[in-house]
Amino acid sequence: MDQVIAAVEAMGLTAEPIPGSLRTAIGVLGNQGYVDDSTIRTLPGVRETIHVSKPYKMASRDFHPEPSIIDVSGVRFGDGHKPVIIAGPCSIESEEQMMIAAKEVKAGGGQMLRGGAFKPRTGPHSFQGLGIPGLKYLQQAGKEYGLPVVTEIMRIEQLEVICQHADMLQIGARNMQNFDLLKEVGKTKHPVLLKRGMSATIEEFLAAAEYLLAEGNSNVVLCERGIRTFEKATRNTLDLSVVPLIREMSHLPIVVDPSHATGKRMLVPVMTKAALVAGAHGVMMEVHPDPARALCDGAQSLSGEHFAELMIEINRLLDFLGYS
Amino acid sequence: MDQVIAAVEAMGLTAEPIPGSLRTAIGVLGNQGYVDDSTIRTLPGVRETIHVSKPYKMASRDFHPEPSIIDVSGVRFGDGHKPVIIAGPCSIESEEQMMIAAKEVKAGGGQMLRGGAFKPRTGPHSFQGLGIPGLKYLQQAGKEYGLPVVTEIMRIEQLEVICQHADMLQIGARNMQNFDLLKEVGKTKHPVLLKRGMSATIEEFLAAAEYLLAEGNSNVVLCERGIRTFEKATRNTLDLSVVPLIREMSHLPIVVDPSHATGKRMLVPVMTKAALVAGAHGVMMEVHPDPARALCDGAQSLSGEHFAELMIEINRLLDFLGYS
Amino acid sequence: MDQVIAAVEAMGLTAEPIPGSLRTAIGVLGNQGYVDDSTIRTLPGVRETIHVSKPYKMASRDFHPEPSIIDVSGVRFGDGHKPVIIAGPCSIESEEQMMIAAKEVKAGGGQMLRGGAFKPRTGPHSFQGLGIPGLKYLQQAGKEYGLPVVTEIMRIEQLEVICQHADMLQIGARNMQNFDLLKEVGKTKHPVLLKRGMSATIEEFLAAAEYLLAEGNSNVVLCERGIRTFEKATRNTLDLSVVPLIREMSHLPIVVDPSHATGKRMLVPVMTKAALVAGAHGVMMEVHPDPARALCDGAQSLSGEHFAELMIEINRLLDFLGYS
Amino acid sequence: MDQVIAAVEAMGLTAEPIPGSLRTAIGVLGNQGYVDDSTIRTLPGVRETIHVSKPYKMASRDFHPEPSIIDVSGVRFGDGHKPVIIAGPCSIESEEQMMIAAKEVKAGGGQMLRGGAFKPRTGPHSFQGLGIPGLKYLQQAGKEYGLPVVTEIMRIEQLEVICQHADMLQIGARNMQNFDLLKEVGKTKHPVLLKRGMSATIEEFLAAAEYLLAEGNSNVVLCERGIRTFEKATRNTLDLSVVPLIREMSHLPIVVDPSHATGKRMLVPVMTKAALVAGAHGVMMEVHPDPARALCDGAQSLSGEHFAELMIEINRLLDFLGYS
Repeated sequence: MDQVIAAVEAMGLTAEPIPGSLRTAIGVLGNQGYVDDSTIRTLPGVRETIHVSKPYKMASRDFHPEPSIIDVSGVRFGDGHKPVIIAGPCSIESEEQMMIAAKEVKAGGGQMLRGGAFKPRTGPHSFQGLGIPGLKYLQQAGKEYGLPVVTEIMRIEQLEVICQHADMLQIGARNMQNFDLLKEVGKTKHPVLLKRGMSATIEEFLAAAEYLLAEGNSNVVLCERGIRTFEKATRNTLDLSVVPLIREMSHLPIVVDPSHATGKRMLVPVMTKAALVAGAHGVMMEVHPDPARALCDGAQSLSGEHFAELMIEINRLLDFLGYS
Repeated sequence: MDQVIAAVEAMGLTAEPIPGSLRTAIGVLGNQGYVDDSTIRTLPGVRETIHVSKPYKMASRDFHPEPSIIDVSGVRFGDGHKPVIIAGPCSIESEEQMMIAAKEVKAGGGQMLRGGAFKPRTGPHSFQGLGIPGLKYLQQAGKEYGLPVVTEIMRIEQLEVICQHADMLQIGARNMQNFDLLKEVGKTKHPVLLKRGMSATIEEFLAAAEYLLAEGNSNVVLCERGIRTFEKATRNTLDLSVVPLIREMSHLPIVVDPSHATGKRMLVPVMTKAALVAGAHGVMMEVHPDPARALCDGAQSLSGEHFAELMIEINRLLDFLGYS
Repeated sequence: MDQVIAAVEAMGLTAEPIPGSLRTAIGVLGNQGYVDDSTIRTLPGVRETIHVSKPYKMASRDFHPEPSIIDVSGVRFGDGHKPVIIAGPCSIESEEQMMIAAKEVKAGGGQMLRGGAFKPRTGPHSFQGLGIPGLKYLQQAGKEYGLPVVTEIMRIEQLEVICQHADMLQIGARNMQNFDLLKEVGKTKHPVLLKRGMSATIEEFLAAAEYLLAEGNSNVVLCERGIRTFEKATRNTLDLSVVPLIREMSHLPIVVDPSHATGKRMLVPVMTKAALVAGAHGVMMEVHPDPARALCDGAQSLSGEHFAELMIEINRLLDFLGYS
Repeated sequence: MDQVIAAVEAMGLTAEPIPGSLRTAIGVLGNQGYVDDSTIRTLPGVRETIHVSKPYKMASRDFHPEPSIIDVSGVRFGDGHKPVIIAGPCSIESEEQMMIAAKEVKAGGGQMLRGGAFKPRTGPHSFQGLGIPGLKYLQQAGKEYGLPVVTEIMRIEQLEVICQHADMLQIGARNMQNFDLLKEVGKTKHPVLLKRGMSATIEEFLAAAEYLLAEGNSNVVLCERGIRTFEKATRNTLDLSVVPLIREMSHLPIVVDPSHATGKRMLVPVMTKAALVAGAHGVMMEVHPDPARALCDGAQSLSGEHFAELMIEINRLLDFLGYS
C-alpha cells in the first residue's frame, strides 16, 4: 500500500485509502482529467484500477452543458433543428450519375448530398474511387441543386483539395483512430462527420472527437454506423441506443447511417424511422440512380424512386415528432 | 474430389461439381433440410462448407408464408393487431407489490402483466425469487385487473404449476438453448415468450423456436432483449434491426424488451418508441411501484407514474402508426 | 448525495463520500460480498456504480488460497498432477464404436473417456444422441479399458442415471447458466466438468461454479472451450489467456477443449500443446474411430491413429514440462 | 432468376443455375478474384450471396505455396528460422532509457529492439511520444547493441524519416485499414510488421497485407495482438489459433504480441511460450528498465531482470522445439 501511495504521489496526485472488509480501495484525487494508470496497475497487491475520469473532456456535457449546433453551409445539425437527411451514392462514378443522384436527392427533399471520391475498400483489387475528378462532379452536382456536400477524407494530403470542394469532411469508421488525420482535420474549422469505429466504445468515440476539439475544430457531428458483433445476418449491428446515450453524455449532434449499419436495402427505411424516433439529429442514406449497377454497396442503396417514397413517410414522421 | 462425392452420396444425397478457375465447388442436392456437414468438412482438399439450407423450417416464412397470430387469453400478438404492452416488476416481491404494480400497469393502459417468481441470477448469493407463493400473487393480481400474466420457467418440474398460474411461459435468454426445457414446453400448447440468447444468432434463435414448433406448440412469440458485445455502456446492445429481419424470415411475432437490453431507465422510453416504429409486435417493460427499493433490476425499472406518462406518448405514436 | 447515502444505509451498509474535482465518489463499506446495486444505480446524479466485490467467493483464491485437487475415480486434476488427457467421440453411436474408441484412447495413453449420450444440437432435426443405451456403452467401454468416463447432463431428471453410469458429469456451454441444473448437481458430490458459456465472462464462469460450491459440491473442474466473437474462421475463439488467469483467481483446476474451440481437426494438435504450455490441468479432445462417418462433429475429431501420434508429442512435451 | 443471370453476365461472368428442392443456387464462374456482389445481392428473390473467392490473392498460399522468409537487417522471420524475440519499451522516453533497454534486451538474448516514437493514444491528453528525437535514440541504441529496430509509423509524412532510422516499420492495429498508409508503405521495400486490427477478421488481415504486396513490398510480417471481445478481464483476447491458421492460409510469417493482447505483465511469460508452441515465427514483448515509471503501458511491461529470466525459459523451450 505504501508503494501505491508513493507512486500516486510521484504523479503529483493525492492518494486516499478506503479500507474494506476484504480489500482496501485507494482513491486518486487531484487529477484534472484522465490518469494514465499503467505505473500503478501492476504494483504488487493491486487487483485492479478503475477509472472515474474519462479520456475526453471538451466533448462531454459536464464541460459543455449547452447542445452544439453545427452549421454546414446553412444546413444545421443539433437540438431544435429538423433532422438532416443526407443522401447520395456510396461512390462517385461519373458526372452524369452525380447529377441524376443530386436531382433525386433534392426532389425527394434531402438537404445534403453525399458521395465518395476516395474509397476505403477491404482489398486492393476493388474499385478505389475516381479521386479528384470525382470531387468536382460532387461539387458541381451540389451547386446545381443547392445541396451542401460531404465526402470522405482518407489521407492528410487530401485535406486542402477536399476542403475546396466539399462543405463537410467525413472521417470513416476505419480512420476513427487515425489520430494524425484527426489532428490535421482538427486544425481546420471545416465541419466534420466523424463515424464511429467498427469496434469503438462510446468512450473511444468521444475521445476521437476530443482530438478534433482539442485542436480547435468544434464543428463535429458524430455518426453511428453499426458495430461489429458475432451476428452476421446484418452487415453490422446498428447500436441505436447510442443515440439517446450520446445525447446525454455529449453536446455534439449525432446522426445515423442505416445503410452501412444494416447492409440491406430492405432494412433501411424502417431503421431510418427508428433512428429518428430515437433522437438522431440526422440520417445518412445511400441513394443511387441505378443500384443494380452501382460500383459499390449497391445492395444497401435505395433507388431515387424508393428514396422519394421513403421521404414522404419520413416527413410525416417528422411532422408527428413536432418538426415542421 | 471423388472422396467428397462418395461421402455426399453415402448420405443419400447428390453431389454436383461446379468447376471454377482456382477451385471447384461441389453442390449438394436432394436434402430436405439442414445437412450435418461434419463428415465432409475436413476431407482432404475441402476448404470450406457453406450452408444454403437452415437448421429450422417450421419457423420460416418459406414453409409458412402467412403471419402467425398468437392469442394469450384474449390478447393478440401479430400482424394487424395493436402492439402489446407487457409491463410489471422484474421479480415478484410481495402480494402488495404485485397488486400495486398490476393497478399501475392497468391504469397506464398495459395489456399484460409480467413478474418473475423464479429468477436466474448470475451468482447464488443474490435474491432467487419467491417461488410458488410469488406465482399466486401474480395470478391474483392479473385476475383482479384483467391482465393475462407471463412469468419465467427455469426448470421442467415447474411446468405444471406455472401453466396453472400463468397465461404465458417465458423462456429466458440463458435458457434459449436449454433444449430439454424447450422440448417439454413444446409438448404443451401453452403460449411461450422465447427470449433471444445473449449471443444467439438469428439463425440459432429461430432454431430454438423450431424446437417448440417441432413438438407441436405453435404459440410462440419471439423476444429481442439485446445481445452481448464489446460495448459496456449499455447492459446489452439492443439489436433492433432484428425486428424487420425476423418479420421477413419468420411468421412468428416478435416483441422487444428495452429494459434488459439497455439496463438504464433513462433509455427505456426512447428505445420503446424506436422498437414500435421498427415493427415490433409488442414491448415488454419493467415497471415497479418503487424502483429505488426493487430487489432486482431497479436501475432499469420505471415507476408507475413514469410508465403512465410513457403510455401517453406510446398511444400517440400507435395512433400515428395507424393502430386505434 | 444525501439520497444515495440514505439508500446505502437502508441496505445496512456504510457510505463514505470521497470528493473529487469534477465528481464525488461514494464508497460502500461493510458488505460481506457482492452488493446488488440496482436501487442505487439510477438515483439522480449517479453516473455509474463500480463493483469491487465479485459475485463469487467460495470459488476464489482470496477465500480458498490452496489449489484444489479433484479426484475422478483415481484420476487427479490439479496442481502437481500430470495434466489429464480426456478423449473420445462427440456422441456415442454404438457399442462397437465406443469399444473401439476406448481401445484407441487407452492405447494412445489417454486417462479418461468422453462420449455424449444426450446431445445439445442447435436444431431439433439433428441427431439428438442415443440416450440411456448410450450411457451403458460408455460405462462398459470405460470399465473394459480402465478409463473413468465423463458425459453431459442436459436435464435434472437425468442426474440419477448419469451418476450411476459416469464418473464425472459434464455441464455444457449452453447450460452454464442453467442455474437449476447447477443447483441440483451441486447437491451431489459427483465430480463435475463445467464448461464456460459461449459468451460468459470469467466472472460469470466463476459465479456459475459458485452455484455448485454453494450447494456443497466442491468437485468442480472448469473447462475453457472457446468464446463467441466476430471471427468465424474458427468455430469459436479459444481464449487461452483464461488459463493462467483462472489459475490465479481460483483454486479450481481448469482444462481446455481445443476441439470445440477451433472446430478444425488441423488445429487441434497445436492448440492442445499450447494449452498445456499455458498451464491447463488437462485437455479434452474428440477422437472417433472413423471421423468421416461421425454423426456429430466429425470435422474436429481425430482418428485413433492421429490421436496416437499426437500423444507421443504430448508426452514429450509433458516430460519437458517436468511431468513424468 | 433471369434478372440475376443477366446481372452476372453484365459483369462479364458466367452464371450457372443449380436447382435445389426449396431454392435454386446460381454459381458465378469465370472470375479471376473476388467479385463485388453488391449489384446482385438484393435483386428480388436473392436470399444471400456467398463468396468462394477471397479479397486477397498474393498473400495466399494458393498463389504462393512456398513460405516467405523476411530478412530484417540480418534477422530472419519464417519457417526454418529460430523464432525472433523483439523486445523493448512501449514508448521511447529518453536516450538513457533506450540505452538501458537495449542493453537489457541484448543481455537477455533478444534479437530486435522495439520502441515507439509516435504513439497512438485513445485520447489527446495522454503522452503522444517524443517524435524524431525518439527515433534517434532508438537507432543509436540499436546500433550500439547490434539490434535491428522496429518502430510504428502513423502518417505518410513520417515514411522517409522512419525508413532512415528504423530497420522495420510497424503498422499498428488502429491503422491496419488505413489503406493510404498501406499503399505508401507498399511502395517502399522496407520490411513491415503489420498488426491485426482490433476487430479484423483473418480475411481482412490478409487483405490488408495484400495492399502492401500489391504495391510491390513483399517484406511483410504479420502480428497477432489480440482482438476485441466482450471479455474485459484481459485488455484484448489473444486469438492464438490464428497462428496455425495463418500459417496454412498464407506464406507470410506471423508473430505474436502477448503484451498488448493480455495487458497484464503476469500473463506475458506463459502466453509467450504458448505462442511459440503454437508456431509463431516470433514474439514481440514490452520490456522497460523501470515499468513502474513507464509513460505508457507499464502494466504490461517486463523489467530487464524479468525478461532475462523469461529468456532462459524461452531458450529451453526453443531447444525442445528443435531450434538451436
